[in-house]
Amino acid sequence: MKVAILAEGQFARATAKTAIGVLRYAPFEVVAVVDSTRAGKDAAECVGVGGGVPVVAGVDEAIARGATVLLIGTAAAGGLIPDGYRPALARALERGVEVWNGLHERVFADPELAAAAARGGATVRELREPPTDLPIGGHRARREGARVVLTVGSDAAVGKMTASLEVVAALRRMGERAEFVATGQTGIAIAGGGIAVDAVVADFIAGAAELMACDAAERADWVVVEGQGSLTHPGFSGVTLGLLHGAAPDVMVLCHEAMRHSVKGYDDRQPLRSLREYVRIYEDAASWRRPPGYPPARVVAVALNTADLSSALAQAMIDNAANETGLPAADPIREGPVGADRLAQALREAVPA
Amino acid sequence: MKVAILAEGQFARATAKTAIGVLRYAPFEVVAVVDSTRAGKDAAECVGVGGGVPVVAGVDEAIARGATVLLIGTAAAGGLIPDGYRPALARALERGVEVWNGLHERVFADPELAAAAARGGATVRELREPPTDLPIGGHRARREGARVVLTVGSDAAVGKMTASLEVVAALRRMGERAEFVATGQTGIAIAGGGIAVDAVVADFIAGAAELMACDAAERADWVVVEGQGSLTHPGFSGVTLGLLHGAAPDVMVLCHEAMRHSVKGYDDRQPLRSLREYVRIYEDAASWRRPPGYPPARVVAVALNTADLSSALAQAMIDNAANETGLPAADPIREGPVGADRLAQALREAVPA
Repeated sequence: MKVAILAEGQFARATAKTAIGVLRYAPFEVVAVVDSTRAGKDAAECVGVGGGVPVVAGVDEAIARGATVLLIGTAAAGGLIPDGYRPALARALERGVEVWNGLHERVFADPELAAAAARGGATVRELREPPTDLPIGGHRARREGARVVLTVGSDAAVGKMTASLEVVAALRRMGERAEFVATGQTGIAIAGGGIAVDAVVADFIAGAAELMACDAAERADWVVVEGQGSLTHPGFSGVTLGLLHGAAPDVMVLCHEAMRHSVKGYDDRQPLRSLREYVRIYEDAASWRRPPGYPPARVVAVALNTADLSSALAQAMIDNAANETGLPAADPIREGPVGADRLAQALREAVPA
Repeated sequence: MKVAILAEGQFARATAKTAIGVLRYAPFEVVAVVDSTRAGKDAAECVGVGGGVPVVAGVDEAIARGATVLLIGTAAAGGLIPDGYRPALARALERGVEVWNGLHERVFADPELAAAAARGGATVRELREPPTDLPIGGHRARREGARVVLTVGSDAAVGKMTASLEVVAALRRMGERAEFVATGQTGIAIAGGGIAVDAVVADFIAGAAELMACDAAERADWVVVEGQGSLTHPGFSGVTLGLLHGAAPDVMVLCHEAMRHSVKGYDDRQPLRSLREYVRIYEDAASWRRPPGYPPARVVAVALNTADLSSALAQAMIDNAANETGLPAADPIREGPVGADRLAQALREAVPA
């Protein structure tokens, strides 16, 4: 399987979150990124990762490089397929290339894309399509001894998936049986499975999270669940709380983008809180669901996203985060394994075997 | 339009929540309840409301009494159509009777029911089917001067819809322009419109609530939004928080069933909190979403459901609730308009025009 990523006109750090995650973590080969406005560049020039992956002008060039899958690599709030993507999607489908779509809007909702797929004999993998038989949350207990970690955040798109994957890698380096649970489209594309909890029927958010956490706990001693949104997000907080109560973590890692001061996409009308307030908010909300006798779930580390900052400023922000919260803090991307290990070590100390 | 309610084997207080709400509040005529196990009784004998409405053995008897609609009158968690209901639904559809369904499972997902509807030329109204073009929450401001009330609860099924409808009636008695916003299947059946926020794609819970609250605020000075679930409910808390942040109430009414001590349907593993704790939890959670400069949303009254208690015990519970919280408390059903007026008066004093 060789994958090309579609990010037409949007292959930049602020807009290509899915593409960046896949370029950084996917276990499959990415052969090209499609963005005619940046054709000829290297992916790393555009988004800082994916060195060696060329940006090409169209789907035909991606197919010439061996692409058998075209993944939609951006995800605007609201989840509509951008009209500018439709010609490339149609071309891929009529040439028999499978499309992976992580948006709320389904590819075959567009009759022209469905017709193109019929002509090309191509299939579509809807990454956000939930299972049809989800349970209501709160009825299943997980294997004793398994520990569940949830990444939580000050906002959407601050690095929760990244922190989760880095913590899993760090725990594995330490010899632990750790498993990543994907709850969003990018994580699902990377992990090859999972449920997009923001796309299930609302009554089943917690049930979907519980199902995944309990299943993973059968196979792993550490289950690291990818968080979504934020409890203070005006649009997505319901998903965040349902995921928190369904995953029912033992410990949490608070994720924050160092220079984010208000909710992304909301014109500064929704300022973020202090890290210390987020620790309190998440611990409070986690406690609402735990029956008496269970120890309260604590935030035990801070994962800071310092992309775009100078080294000196990044280090100062990491130090500040640690001082403000009294918790270990790290940027697992900038610092590399040293940073991720610091987060993983905090988890192991908080819930020893 | 004449409506029969299907509650086969389940026409009792604990299981027929939808039927009870419709019998108490619907603006249309209910001609019969279908439950062969209770045929021959009067509805009021079974559930305490609906005096004069006969319980009949089957759909044919309901049609003989003029029914043109058959409403599914129960709603188990998980939202599947009980197998025991399918024969009655098929009979109704093949005789041309419209079915109203408030469950998650859609009637036409059953090929035999779809075939019966085709034979009878009957239609189905899916009360929980959401609009397809919902917005993400947090982007729309409502008309200034309109005040939004949200009923919130210690658990699911404690009386939030009932309290909302009684408060609307009380505000109207006081000469206010008040409107009820239905967010669940029973409320939608009664009001003739609304969105079941537990049935939307999870990313759109807040957006759906905001849409309804803002639209109602164009027509009314008081918008009373029906709450759902509870922030401490292991399965439904995500819906509750999304609704809270989307509706963005100015004031809240806390609803509780006096003798409920643990989450319904969870085998005592999830005890409820004190009323005082619920006040704090809801005010905290509401504050997470309000931008600075907006006054915090307060819980200003307690609606207590004292069904099945003696008068003396009910009065003691109402007094206790008022003492514990320092807020006006009432059971708007047991006390009638006097109780509802007490709740409405608390709202008017909390947010004067």
